[in-house]
Amino acid sequence: MIPPTVLGLSDYLAARQKRIDEALDRWTPPESASPPTIHRAMRYSLFAGGKRIRPLLAMAAAEAVAGDCAGVEDLACALEMVHTYSLIHDDLPALDNDDLRRGRPTCHKVFGEAMAILAGDALLTRAFQVLAQLPGVDGERKAWLVEELAAASGTAGGMIAGQVNDLEGEGRPPEAQLLESIHRAKTGALLKASVRMGAIWAGAGGRTLEALSSYGEHAGLAFQIVDDLLDVEQSSEALGKTAGKDLAQGKITFPAVYGLERSREMAELERRRAHEALFELGERGARLKQLADRIVRRSR
Amino acid sequence: MIPPTVLGLSDYLAARQKRIDEALDRWTPPESASPPTIHRAMRYSLFAGGKRIRPLLAMAAAEAVAGDCAGVEDLACALEMVHTYSLIHDDLPALDNDDLRRGRPTCHKVFGEAMAILAGDALLTRAFQVLAQLPGVDGERKAWLVEELAAASGTAGGMIAGQVNDLEGEGRPPEAQLLESIHRAKTGALLKASVRMGAIWAGAGGRTLEALSSYGEHAGLAFQIVDDLLDVEQSSEALGKTAGKDLAQGKITFPAVYGLERSREMAELERRRAHEALFELGERGARLKQLADRIVRRSR
Repeated sequence: MIPPTVLGLSDYLAARQKRIDEALDRWTPPESASPPTIHRAMRYSLFAGGKRIRPLLAMAAAEAVAGDCAGVEDLACALEMVHTYSLIHDDLPALDNDDLRRGRPTCHKVFGEAMAILAGDALLTRAFQVLAQLPGVDGERKAWLVEELAAASGTAGGMIAGQVNDLEGEGRPPEAQLLESIHRAKTGALLKASVRMGAIWAGAGGRTLEALSSYGEHAGLAFQIVDDLLDVEQSSEALGKTAGKDLAQGKITFPAVYGLERSREMAELERRRAHEALFELGERGARLKQLADRIVRRSR
Repeated sequence: MIPPTVLGLSDYLAARQKRIDEALDRWTPPESASPPTIHRAMRYSLFAGGKRIRPLLAMAAAEAVAGDCAGVEDLACALEMVHTYSLIHDDLPALDNDDLRRGRPTCHKVFGEAMAILAGDALLTRAFQVLAQLPGVDGERKAWLVEELAAASGTAGGMIAGQVNDLEGEGRPPEAQLLESIHRAKTGALLKASVRMGAIWAGAGGRTLEALSSYGEHAGLAFQIVDDLLDVEQSSEALGKTAGKDLAQGKITFPAVYGLERSREMAELERRRAHEALFELGERGARLKQLADRIVRRSR
């Protein structure tokens, strides 16, 4: 078996993305399953060309703990389902009211608001079902994974808390503490949980899990800073979603608080911190370091 | 300790409802917890005077299996959270567009659509977190409970499938097979799961679990038939929600398909079937029988 770090990063990413997509296809009811509309809506958003950052982080973290990890793509599906549900609901007219996502009309533009709400609900529900059914994982670890995913997605410092703070922060003066609390919860919690859940899946605990948590936190923050920068710097076409939207909506972003140059420096600092967190993993952390680099240097 | 069946039904229900409400209060972040708005919205809908049918079924099923069951109210909270999330989303303008629920303005009327969508999401997420944290339950059983709840709430014959069929059935000719497929999924699956999950929590398996599943199916169907009847027969004031709405929306209901008298007979038949399913539980099934009777003879 080829050790995963021998592949170049692009080949590695392509191979993992293929495994993720195949697993998502297995774990999602087919479009023909009754009632077909909801499964079409779920699949429309799941297979819309996402970057699969959360699944990739989970898989790379598992591999850092336990080498080549057959089956970790099943776990990764739960993360992508939760992420996709959050995008569908976030795009709704009552929330961000976005017509474009990943270069295509958003779920509610295609399937209507009612179906989009239900498709988001269904993906969230399905994510927990996937965790409960994970092959080869014992009950205690499944329950731990459910706890991690629910906490990262919930209202106590999780994704929904971030959404609420984001909504309520619109139009308020861009302020550093509010910015941090929004992003730590809105995107940071699930990105960190992705790394942690991959590690937990692979049997990690103690110091290794702590190191990977720290990596996940810094890589997650870097991801968000770059996301905010891309929204300012790029066109909608390159980005695949409406660009400049943050500014138009009065969202509190890193460029709005710190300016472009300082934001770029901060992303670079978080990238370095992500690397440093992996110190004690030695060579096993190589792939995660590459992922942190890619996160910061990506163009969409 | 007084065996639960010694109490009269009204005292029993009051005592259990108190335990459920206290547990819901413990398992839901306080209104003061950040961000407060979402916790206010969650609590507004959770503590809106619901009948707690699902928690009561779960607790009575657990008691039928294992006698007095300290702690089963924690499990019951997960069921009430999922039920409440489904009501909040169901009431949204894009779905049933209802202004009144349990005699009070619906969640989105008070907190706005965005917050109502997120409050529903948060309750669904929290339900799975409660299951993952259940005190005194081993990992395998927690994972089984997550699987049961997710399946009953999902798109494969679960609650969301019922919602979709219901939406897509509006305005179509009232037809028996469609009616059954809607209700089996929309309300039946979660009611049945409530009974099953209480039994599983208490350690049931095999024939006892099968008997209780059958009870849950019949009691659940009886509940839905009576719900449809009450919508026709009662005023909005007595019902606490907009009456006659099913008819106005062209919903497929039991009275629409079978007429009032036949629907009443069907509810009675399902009540008797629920009783019969409990045959092999003997005296231990007494409380569940009373609950089935109450479900059919209730006035809201």
